[in-house]
Amino acid sequence: MKEECQARIACLQERLQQAELDGAFILYPIDIYYYSATRQNAALWVPTQGDPMLMVRKSLARAEQESGLDQLRPFPRSKDFASLFDGNKKIGMTFDVLPVDQYNFYQKMLPQAEFVDISMINRELRSVKSDWELERMRHGGVQLSRAFATIADLLKPGMREIDLAAEFESVLRKIGGEGLVRMRAFNQEMFMGLVVSGRSGSKGGFFDGAVTGQGMSNAVPFGASTKTIEPGQPVLIDYAGVFDGYIVDMTRMFVCGELDAQLQNAFDVSCRIQDCVAAELKPGAICSELFERSLKMAEEAGLDGCYMGPPGEQARFVGHGVGLELDEFPVLAQGFDMPLIAGQTIAIEPKFVFPKQGPIGIENTYVVTQQGGEKISVLSDALISV
Amino acid sequence: MKEECQARIACLQERLQQAELDGAFILYPIDIYYYSATRQNAALWVPTQGDPMLMVRKSLARAEQESGLDQLRPFPRSKDFASLFDGNKKIGMTFDVLPVDQYNFYQKMLPQAEFVDISMINRELRSVKSDWELERMRHGGVQLSRAFATIADLLKPGMREIDLAAEFESVLRKIGGEGLVRMRAFNQEMFMGLVVSGRSGSKGGFFDGAVTGQGMSNAVPFGASTKTIEPGQPVLIDYAGVFDGYIVDMTRMFVCGELDAQLQNAFDVSCRIQDCVAAELKPGAICSELFERSLKMAEEAGLDGCYMGPPGEQARFVGHGVGLELDEFPVLAQGFDMPLIAGQTIAIEPKFVFPKQGPIGIENTYVVTQQGGEKISVLSDALISV
Repeated sequence: MKEECQARIACLQERLQQAELDGAFILYPIDIYYYSATRQNAALWVPTQGDPMLMVRKSLARAEQESGLDQLRPFPRSKDFASLFDGNKKIGMTFDVLPVDQYNFYQKMLPQAEFVDISMINRELRSVKSDWELERMRHGGVQLSRAFATIADLLKPGMREIDLAAEFESVLRKIGGEGLVRMRAFNQEMFMGLVVSGRSGSKGGFFDGAVTGQGMSNAVPFGASTKTIEPGQPVLIDYAGVFDGYIVDMTRMFVCGELDAQLQNAFDVSCRIQDCVAAELKPGAICSELFERSLKMAEEAGLDGCYMGPPGEQARFVGHGVGLELDEFPVLAQGFDMPLIAGQTIAIEPKFVFPKQGPIGIENTYVVTQQGGEKISVLSDALISV
Repeated sequence: MKEECQARIACLQERLQQAELDGAFILYPIDIYYYSATRQNAALWVPTQGDPMLMVRKSLARAEQESGLDQLRPFPRSKDFASLFDGNKKIGMTFDVLPVDQYNFYQKMLPQAEFVDISMINRELRSVKSDWELERMRHGGVQLSRAFATIADLLKPGMREIDLAAEFESVLRKIGGEGLVRMRAFNQEMFMGLVVSGRSGSKGGFFDGAVTGQGMSNAVPFGASTKTIEPGQPVLIDYAGVFDGYIVDMTRMFVCGELDAQLQNAFDVSCRIQDCVAAELKPGAICSELFERSLKMAEEAGLDGCYMGPPGEQARFVGHGVGLELDEFPVLAQGFDMPLIAGQTIAIEPKFVFPKQGPIGIENTYVVTQQGGEKISVLSDALISV
């Protein structure tokens, strides 16, 4: 892990240098894990020149065992802060996730410092995975595929969405799934994934995706509900598998009996869109153009009115970065005009949501390569009829 | 829900008035759910005088179905902000959870406004549950107890912690558990709960509790691991059941075979501490004094060296508020000198962590009443031997 951490820190320091900053406080636990290889309660100081220092609240012993960094110490007392960081005037922080009271604490500790937002730098750096990370994500893709392969045996007509979810989640946990699906955006959250069927999958929601689900209550309004799965209804299963902290995201379609021709056609279109976008996951491709191309294919199929969400709540994206968080950069979305970089990992998920019949679509996780997307959620895309 | 929301908003408005504020932006989704009965992607404006307004990004249709408020509208365009909120100079926000970039957005929209931290007000208000909330939490306590009652049939010597966790979580989901355990503190997180056994349960960690667990990787360093459960080892199972969004927290002890006398004694002490603190859960009791009393009982038993954590990482609390979040007010902790209020809901969890043998303890969730704590996690506290 030592070399891995050194390389990540070096990339961050290069960006801090370009931004003319003196250093950065990395304070969000998932970012701390990324740069230090430990997710203990800590703050990571990365000077633009020199060695980083991990300041640990709890557990220092565990951080020392786990971390790839050389310098660790207990979190400083307030009166020691100024002397430790004296001379650092411009300091980066991730304003996208840092609470105001944390910001105020550091401003009080270092009244001379000016804090600068490095959210974009951090998200860009984290979007490109190293070989070490890709090895873990490929393993996760195989494990999640193994779990999905059991669904055909679990699904029975008349069972409740929540029961299928419970059984699938148990399979996923037993093969090592860590369960906790981390999201970065302020008002987003997810619990493992979604089992939805027919109209319960067509309901709009807070979630920034095509499908939200009914959920068990208005307090947790997403995912499986107590609705029973009836013959002929599309059953959409969308889960994030978490292994070694890394997320792989995939969706497969199931039906008890047969789907009607319209839904079957929409499924075929979603697979064609996915494959077309996946083939273009090469360095330099512009994210927003990939979304526009997918939208055009939906239009040509006459399905743009229910593309990526129920009518009136359609999302304007077709893919999103995944890694330690479910909502990483890049996003294949309207307005996201950045070029792809080799080693980025992206879930492509073209979906159609028919208000009366339910949602249908496909999703796989890919690595951006010179040859186009490398599919790491290795299971067949085929719709399964039981 | 309408009366429920009106009552909660009225309490908030009273506190805003006392703080001489013109209103508050409630922006954190869990707080929005508390005051409006919908957890859609939205911002809630609560003027100190007059009716609140929920401004919804997504889904407005769903928010309209769910909310107990009268005034809902789409989230305003940037150019409309100033006219909507003109004249409001001092505005409350919860700095404990609001990211800096959100704060900056509102400051840009309303350059004349001064934003003031109302985190404490919000946490105090939310700590006292209404009859409507208590009804839901009592139901959750029964459901979680039903799930715990199945563990004796699931646990077999030689099984892995993760397999027992997977099977128990499946039971919990099938009886309606929503799974998502929300935490408010910046660097805390939890996935459903912990299955730990022997030394895997003695490892320190980032988690602000007595027990963290080994977990499956350094990226998600808590909860069940692949360690097998051996005869004679204490098996500590600590889960948060989430029903209708409300959390009930409980811990029970299990063993394959028999515990040795030292561990059995520590278990008995933890139950005595719990029962003593529970009897004092009356309005007016001072939180920190309840912790001090529990610590004194641990000292008298000669067990203070491993009370509430492994040596060197001992937590200084014996209970915490629960509700929509796992880490609510009040905290029965050193330095938390506030008096209890009737209707607060508190998990009491005296635990001992022996570095070589493992953790042992008990936990139940109680309501503060004039007669002392009402236990809502209704299952017997007895240690189960299988």
